[in-house]
Amino acid sequence: MENLYAARIEQIRTLMRARGWSAVVLSGSDPHGSEYIAPRWQQIAWVSGYDGEGALVITLDHAGLWTDTRYFIQAGRQLPGTGIELHKTRVPEQVLIPQWLAAQAAQAGDDYVIAVDGVSQSASSVAEILDACREAGCAVGDDAAVRVVNAPDLLDGLWTDRPGIPATPVMTLGAELTGESRQDRIAWLRDVLVEKGCDAMLLTALDEIAWLLNIRAADIPYNPVCISYLLVTMDEVCWYVRKDDFVRPDEETADSFEELRAEGIRIQGYDEVACDVAGMFEDGTIGRLYADPSSLNYNLCTILSDVAIQTGPSPVTLRKAVKNPTEIAGFRDAHLEDGVAMERFLYWLEKSLAFGDIVTERDAADKLGQYRAEIPGYKGDSFETISAYGPNAALPHYVTPAGDAPRLEPHGLYLCDSGGQYVFGTTDITRTVPLGPCTPLEREDYTLVLKGHIDLAMAVFPKGTAGCQLDVLARNPLWQSRRNFGHGTGHGVGFFLNVHEGPQDIRQNFNAQPLLPGMVTSDEPGIYREGRHGIRHENLILCVEDGTTDFGTWLRFEPLTLCHFDTSVLVRELLTPDETEWLNEYNRRVYETLRPRLPEAVATWLEQKTRAI
Amino acid sequence: MENLYAARIEQIRTLMRARGWSAVVLSGSDPHGSEYIAPRWQQIAWVSGYDGEGALVITLDHAGLWTDTRYFIQAGRQLPGTGIELHKTRVPEQVLIPQWLAAQAAQAGDDYVIAVDGVSQSASSVAEILDACREAGCAVGDDAAVRVVNAPDLLDGLWTDRPGIPATPVMTLGAELTGESRQDRIAWLRDVLVEKGCDAMLLTALDEIAWLLNIRAADIPYNPVCISYLLVTMDEVCWYVRKDDFVRPDEETADSFEELRAEGIRIQGYDEVACDVAGMFEDGTIGRLYADPSSLNYNLCTILSDVAIQTGPSPVTLRKAVKNPTEIAGFRDAHLEDGVAMERFLYWLEKSLAFGDIVTERDAADKLGQYRAEIPGYKGDSFETISAYGPNAALPHYVTPAGDAPRLEPHGLYLCDSGGQYVFGTTDITRTVPLGPCTPLEREDYTLVLKGHIDLAMAVFPKGTAGCQLDVLARNPLWQSRRNFGHGTGHGVGFFLNVHEGPQDIRQNFNAQPLLPGMVTSDEPGIYREGRHGIRHENLILCVEDGTTDFGTWLRFEPLTLCHFDTSVLVRELLTPDETEWLNEYNRRVYETLRPRLPEAVATWLEQKTRAI
Repeated sequence: MENLYAARIEQIRTLMRARGWSAVVLSGSDPHGSEYIAPRWQQIAWVSGYDGEGALVITLDHAGLWTDTRYFIQAGRQLPGTGIELHKTRVPEQVLIPQWLAAQAAQAGDDYVIAVDGVSQSASSVAEILDACREAGCAVGDDAAVRVVNAPDLLDGLWTDRPGIPATPVMTLGAELTGESRQDRIAWLRDVLVEKGCDAMLLTALDEIAWLLNIRAADIPYNPVCISYLLVTMDEVCWYVRKDDFVRPDEETADSFEELRAEGIRIQGYDEVACDVAGMFEDGTIGRLYADPSSLNYNLCTILSDVAIQTGPSPVTLRKAVKNPTEIAGFRDAHLEDGVAMERFLYWLEKSLAFGDIVTERDAADKLGQYRAEIPGYKGDSFETISAYGPNAALPHYVTPAGDAPRLEPHGLYLCDSGGQYVFGTTDITRTVPLGPCTPLEREDYTLVLKGHIDLAMAVFPKGTAGCQLDVLARNPLWQSRRNFGHGTGHGVGFFLNVHEGPQDIRQNFNAQPLLPGMVTSDEPGIYREGRHGIRHENLILCVEDGTTDFGTWLRFEPLTLCHFDTSVLVRELLTPDETEWLNEYNRRVYETLRPRLPEAVATWLEQKTRAI
Repeated sequence: MENLYAARIEQIRTLMRARGWSAVVLSGSDPHGSEYIAPRWQQIAWVSGYDGEGALVITLDHAGLWTDTRYFIQAGRQLPGTGIELHKTRVPEQVLIPQWLAAQAAQAGDDYVIAVDGVSQSASSVAEILDACREAGCAVGDDAAVRVVNAPDLLDGLWTDRPGIPATPVMTLGAELTGESRQDRIAWLRDVLVEKGCDAMLLTALDEIAWLLNIRAADIPYNPVCISYLLVTMDEVCWYVRKDDFVRPDEETADSFEELRAEGIRIQGYDEVACDVAGMFEDGTIGRLYADPSSLNYNLCTILSDVAIQTGPSPVTLRKAVKNPTEIAGFRDAHLEDGVAMERFLYWLEKSLAFGDIVTERDAADKLGQYRAEIPGYKGDSFETISAYGPNAALPHYVTPAGDAPRLEPHGLYLCDSGGQYVFGTTDITRTVPLGPCTPLEREDYTLVLKGHIDLAMAVFPKGTAGCQLDVLARNPLWQSRRNFGHGTGHGVGFFLNVHEGPQDIRQNFNAQPLLPGMVTSDEPGIYREGRHGIRHENLILCVEDGTTDFGTWLRFEPLTLCHFDTSVLVRELLTPDETEWLNEYNRRVYETLRPRLPEAVATWLEQKTRAI
């Protein structure tokens, strides 16, 4: 029996031959450069059956999936039979898609046509392909040896049951939650545009639009955003969104639209954006448009080719990342509520296993979801819960099976990485829980990862320091034992928005963005041993000011997450006195803060769990 | 009485008015992009009296010196009265010369002429100025609003007693010292050029020429190089150097030239390079020339404007930085000999002060120099010894006065940063020595800096790690106490070549060059308190392989320097058990290794000094 996906790739090759294409690139993103994507744009999964992150390139004699260390094991399981080869990224010998394509094009010599689905590919990613081809010595252009063809929705003819563009209810958030009205945010953006010598900006990133308009929806699983574009000119604000009653018939949306319109915001159809912007440029309403090519899709960029566009990083990215006092207060509330849910969950887990109940990874994930769902303001999870026992946890992005999930056993380690979306904040927490006796290696790994987590959490650093300059603090305890992990140490987290956001991060890649007071970032070192176990310890940490000395102005982190770290399997002598003190103080604070909100039995249990070591 | 330097700046302004120049840039370098420069090119000192590193820009109404944190105190002492303002670099709010000039040009609007001494300014630094002007919205070009004028040796008319181009004896090094013949190195370079699609390279950096030809001279103080250019084509090697008998009359040079000529290397006059290269391009001997714009001067670049030049980083830089086994063995010998000199010096210092002898900073520097000079193969110091007592050490690049130097007192801290050039290696070591009772702050600072030194020295890291990803290890102990230092943590060191070399370093700036086995780098955190004290602990460390685990291939450092760290003033409880163990093991190794070569009294003393704590 032929493999379903191998057959689909052959269908694509038939299309390629008919159109004269040498290569097809599927970026794995959506029209807005999103990281998490709605089913409509999950083209990689449809073509390959692989449902992790990644990008696909198909030529007439090769099909390759590009993905990073986090997904090697998953790709290794899902790709066999499809004929697709894995191209590893974030490894020293990596050859990225632009360079790989450039080498193919250079070898072909002439008439090399690269088709991209311009709708779901960013303008900057296409530019990278073109740059790489030029660097490889190829002539590039409409009549040159190498051509890039915009083929919007190129799979449409094959993917007959493709889902539509999502349209979920739209809610608004008041300034009592966000700390700032949309009018204030719009006014700020206009000031920035004037400084840049532009008189309009087309916002294309969905979380930036949600932030600026103080709106939320549920168009993308786990990301409370609304598929749309936003144009801000000096006089007007036009929101391009699926607005008709038959796609968004609910009252909440009607109220939200009404509120926006009352503030003078024009609401237009999602498909009208290109025409509308081009028209405004032609009639002089817009002189110079600012756009961020990392989220502006290539299709739109092509249609707007006559408009004077100045490209650059969106100013909203940084502003959104620096949380204001109201947002910070909301984050604290969210972590208080989330901490109560986590501790109730961990109590339930321990007691259930002690009573001999059967608990699967799925049961555990569901139970945690139930506790979170009881919290007023809960709007869903911030990503799909990773509930992974034993060797399953060695996949950093393990997906717990819906049915027939593995059972938790009363020994070894259970990893749970989860988070909630609340109207007043977003959470993301990983706890690795010993379910009974652990091996010496499990205990040592558990301790060294926690040591790294603590060392980063204890960091004090001068103003201007970037995350990549701190990353080694979380890795050094592992490196000293010749161990490591293949993912970043920390990502930015949105305020009731995407659980991954920029511009800051804490990882080895050079990212010059300094950490600023008000930024929320994760601290999540880990270790993964295929076939054995996986460990990750994650808190969200808030960057705060820490005074000035003769040597400059200082910053540090404050943990937002409130949930104890289990100390029972620690190899205590691997911790320094400072690290032990941090851990005891953290666990003490968790207990003191959560105690008044916990059921009596859970509180008593937590007091035991958080005893100083 | 008018200030001498203020008068010189006015002379330059008179010249500027006569020529129609708006600004004059003096880069502080030489025709080869050198860091240390021969007196002939010490233009900044002649103009301003300031003799640290830096660059000068003079306009009709402003004179500014740009320099970094290391030189703020020195500039603050030397600039008053000159009318020159200090522009601080390596601080968050820095405005570098290109951006500062661009702002001036933008303000002027039209007819802004920037004169550069193209002889002592690199092509890339001029390109940076032009780029900045373009970014500021200025039209740039020969007939445009902003023009750069090449004014070679523009100070010549004013600087009447300007020194000539140096020409010191030239020696050759055999492969028994360098591990590789010049023919092998030339063959390697030719292979690299073929890969790059070029058929010739013009080497302009002096240490690269010395490395490739296995020659040394003493044209620049402390840098055993020879002012010259080197052209390598597929068939020929032409060395452009001051070669006439009346400038280099010695026998050693004659022998060296003879040896090179016997190997087919053509030796031409230093001034013939431009003409020669242009001629070879015209007659087709050269098709495409490779050059590194960071050491190719703007004057030469202008003369060669008709030649097809491909610019990029010199491949020699990286190759030279990775020491071969012979060079590494030489480095070890150099550090053994240097360690003996250092320990004899430290013994003498302690005993002299104990006997009540008068010892000045100068006496100490001279004594250390004498011990080094006794070593066979010693060719001078690798930089000017920093011999600084008490508050003087707060200037990281303090220059000890030649006469009437401050006296060492039997309390507080004495800092000595020094190094030797030996035909088999280069050393660079800093010890901060307690001369008697120290204050609690001195002891704490001494300990925290040593903790940082040790933490970096103990680093284990995966292949592919760059120095900037490790830098924080040396800073973290200081940062935890809200202290810091304003210079890099480590620089590459040449093999009987420049004490500072690239491409690797260990500092906060993003430098993507991974540390590779065979690279020699310094480990020198410090702390500087103006008016109080300065502390620095420096060893050279060799990057070595450290095996492979499931998590990748590992590297670590091995200290090359052999000289004990004084433990008497340590605040022991600030060190972790691992750090204490490292220190004890290091001091033990210093004693065991040096003992057979030390005079009896010194050996006995050192045994005491290196007792485990």
